[in-house]
Amino acid sequence: MHTLAELAQHIGADWLGDAEAEIHRAQAFDAAMVGDVTLAADAAYRARVQDCAATAIIIAPPAIESATVNFLIAKHPKLAFARAIQALHHQPYQATGISGDFIQNKDCVLGNELSIHPRVTLGNEVVLGNRVTLHPGVVIGDRCRIGDDTIVYANVTIYEDCEIGNRVIIHAGAVIGAAGFGFVPDEVGTQVKVLQLGRVIIEDDCEIGANCAIDRGGFTDTVLRRGVKLDNLIQVGHNSLIGENTVIAALTGLSGGTTVGRNCTLAGQVGTHQHITIGDRAMILGQAGVTKNIAADTVIGGMAQDYRAWRRSQVLFARLPELQERLKRVEKKLALIADGKSD
Amino acid sequence: MHTLAELAQHIGADWLGDAEAEIHRAQAFDAAMVGDVTLAADAAYRARVQDCAATAIIIAPPAIESATVNFLIAKHPKLAFARAIQALHHQPYQATGISGDFIQNKDCVLGNELSIHPRVTLGNEVVLGNRVTLHPGVVIGDRCRIGDDTIVYANVTIYEDCEIGNRVIIHAGAVIGAAGFGFVPDEVGTQVKVLQLGRVIIEDDCEIGANCAIDRGGFTDTVLRRGVKLDNLIQVGHNSLIGENTVIAALTGLSGGTTVGRNCTLAGQVGTHQHITIGDRAMILGQAGVTKNIAADTVIGGMAQDYRAWRRSQVLFARLPELQERLKRVEKKLALIADGKSD
Amino acid sequence: MHTLAELAQHIGADWLGDAEAEIHRAQAFDAAMVGDVTLAADAAYRARVQDCAATAIIIAPPAIESATVNFLIAKHPKLAFARAIQALHHQPYQATGISGDFIQNKDCVLGNELSIHPRVTLGNEVVLGNRVTLHPGVVIGDRCRIGDDTIVYANVTIYEDCEIGNRVIIHAGAVIGAAGFGFVPDEVGTQVKVLQLGRVIIEDDCEIGANCAIDRGGFTDTVLRRGVKLDNLIQVGHNSLIGENTVIAALTGLSGGTTVGRNCTLAGQVGTHQHITIGDRAMILGQAGVTKNIAADTVIGGMAQDYRAWRRSQVLFARLPELQERLKRVEKKLALIADGKSD
Repeated sequence: MHTLAELAQHIGADWLGDAEAEIHRAQAFDAAMVGDVTLAADAAYRARVQDCAATAIIIAPPAIESATVNFLIAKHPKLAFARAIQALHHQPYQATGISGDFIQNKDCVLGNELSIHPRVTLGNEVVLGNRVTLHPGVVIGDRCRIGDDTIVYANVTIYEDCEIGNRVIIHAGAVIGAAGFGFVPDEVGTQVKVLQLGRVIIEDDCEIGANCAIDRGGFTDTVLRRGVKLDNLIQVGHNSLIGENTVIAALTGLSGGTTVGRNCTLAGQVGTHQHITIGDRAMILGQAGVTKNIAADTVIGGMAQDYRAWRRSQVLFARLPELQERLKRVEKKLALIADGKSD
Repeated sequence: MHTLAELAQHIGADWLGDAEAEIHRAQAFDAAMVGDVTLAADAAYRARVQDCAATAIIIAPPAIESATVNFLIAKHPKLAFARAIQALHHQPYQATGISGDFIQNKDCVLGNELSIHPRVTLGNEVVLGNRVTLHPGVVIGDRCRIGDDTIVYANVTIYEDCEIGNRVIIHAGAVIGAAGFGFVPDEVGTQVKVLQLGRVIIEDDCEIGANCAIDRGGFTDTVLRRGVKLDNLIQVGHNSLIGENTVIAALTGLSGGTTVGRNCTLAGQVGTHQHITIGDRAMILGQAGVTKNIAADTVIGGMAQDYRAWRRSQVLFARLPELQERLKRVEKKLALIADGKSD
Repeated sequence: MHTLAELAQHIGADWLGDAEAEIHRAQAFDAAMVGDVTLAADAAYRARVQDCAATAIIIAPPAIESATVNFLIAKHPKLAFARAIQALHHQPYQATGISGDFIQNKDCVLGNELSIHPRVTLGNEVVLGNRVTLHPGVVIGDRCRIGDDTIVYANVTIYEDCEIGNRVIIHAGAVIGAAGFGFVPDEVGTQVKVLQLGRVIIEDDCEIGANCAIDRGGFTDTVLRRGVKLDNLIQVGHNSLIGENTVIAALTGLSGGTTVGRNCTLAGQVGTHQHITIGDRAMILGQAGVTKNIAADTVIGGMAQDYRAWRRSQVLFARLPELQERLKRVEKKLALIADGKSD
């Protein structure tokens, strides 16, 4: 529980109303009740704050003077709400200890205050930091290192020699470090495997979605820099490098050797050609196919065109039938003129 | 085994031929032999019924008078065949009991006639209905409820607090209830997690394909209504709602807050923007990107245009080179006219 | 370790330089050091061979006469390099034996020199060949057969009655043999399941990526012919047939009944309609939607057009705004002419 004034301080907002109002829970706008904090995310919600039952409503400045509601006023209201949800709902870590069913091979090094659920299997020489949580069915290969406060959900597989940082979250079913996809056809067409000798490095504060597949590098490593967030069912090809704080939505596939800058946003079902570089802070729209390098700070849609050019083409694409009609009329008129001339 | 007349009654078809003919098996048209029932799915197969070795052939009306074959005549022949396959091949449930290797935490409630294979792990306060089958490697989190006659295949993970109905089938590797993908960048670009407090509700008679990922809701729940069928490798974002009997093909991704109506068909690799609503009985073609709301009873392809408009554009898209040539000719003629005038 | 001359012989290359130079490791061009073999993959790398620290560099003919470097000269340098990596880095198989934690049901037949890690579960009547490796969490259903020297990584699920050949590699999280996606709506829209009675057959030397899903056939089988290589997160629908040595990149989905020829290349995120046939040696570009049969030896992009036609359209698609501007000018000029005439 926080009072309005306490929560305001915690999330870096100004407050307006009853400083002592008690807030127990975060909730969506339309479901909020007494004791809740909620978010008025846009003008439509702002127009309805008087009808909201929440004890406190987070809004962007300016305050709504006419309303008789407790406000938390924040320059970045969504960010303030995310922090409020954490303040009210984050469960502090409690170690559950090491299950009697735990299987570890030789020479593992285990930190303190662990939560190792049943049916976890470690290879040789695995190093676990402190306060690591491993859910049932987790399999970690030889010589992997897992940092402090990292959570690995059920049935995740981590192949040998991978390094996972601190405070990383890996969701169920993800596969880290499978062999990169490298084959060369021989003289008769049989595919010869290019052995994959690199590793996967996942730095601090990354989150990996359910059933993702992040392949190990060929010679060097596949690297996710600090704070990368991957949604579910994402493919990261060998030797890819994803920059700090980049966010990638579900079902996107990075081909081998893709370099993505920091603070980028890739929407769902995006695909990249091999060895593409995407600049910092670029935004790639859903289902885009990135076939060439993308400059920093650009927005890209469709087949990797500049977003505004692509939008124009996209709009015209829908108007192609009209375009053709206009062209037909032009041709008809011209034919009439030509007939007039030849008379 | 069924006789022709019995099978006709069972699947709701008329029969023509030897009422006592014995049918033991369903089989594809070209592989069918004596003792089999098969399907003549279209005119091409109808033309070949006399060559088919099956004991009975399911067809749409009218009967083929010239043929000396046993027929099962049904208004919906594919439906009749699906029922015939079930009548002949459905394996009745037989409980295998609870493996000695079963691990359950505190206060679980278990129904009767269970089939719990080895290496299954339940959290606290899990409730299992009657005749539930849990294959090896299944991990079910705290406070989940699993209905009667539900089958969960190997290595499925269900996070805490999810509700799975009766007669649900969840295929191997699926992940139910991982955190929805919600992040807000802070002032320096670090992604702040929006804690996901909702659940996943899967109602009766749903089927979830292998390696699907269905995220839990943010505040409210992600919901699959009764009879939804998901193919493999599908992403269902947080707070999505999928209506009754809707069918979705592989590798499709629903963004957060997508609402899909009932009896819809989404083909493979479809993607939706956030907060899109798709009306009842809509059909979305393969690889379509749904960027706006879709009315009920429409067919949609490409970038979420009406199907017929999209088809026209798609046809013209392929004819763009010709279009450009025609435009060039027009311009050339006009230039000639202009030259004539200026002379 | 190999000498230059030994390695040349092993990989089928000519050598130039110090026959006795010792090579211990394969490495990427820019990271290579003394004792390494590397690859100069193209003209840009060829121009830099003198700056490379590697003990031997694989190049295509002709030799670079001016350079004072040890060369391995091969007609197919990438293939030669793949073989060199294997020669230097392939780990010979060493059986680790059968874990005490192994669970097998009735009547399994086990080969010799096995490596069965903990937490592996076999159904009834499973047959394992010699030198099979099963990682933790592998679940194999009744009556499956697994060939010699096959490696199944962690948390893979193989449903009943599947056949896996010799020297197959199945990466973590893959699901082999789940029910194909077959439903028929009944009179009120409820989806009736079409029971799937076929199997999955994976022939020798195939490799299946992490978290792939390969569905069993309806009546007949889903078949991967010898030497097929699948990247991660690929969907193979029921009754599909993939020809020898075909390579498929990540997140591609084959609909039910897709037939792919031999030695084809399908890039990432490709989708196919049901019952499509793709000819031998065809190449399908990334994100293409294959809606009709594809002839052998063709290159296909976009919505399954011929590659060259598609490229022309694709180029014009980006120029549609210009096209529209030109059309407007034509119309304006025509209007002026018409005005002149009507005066």
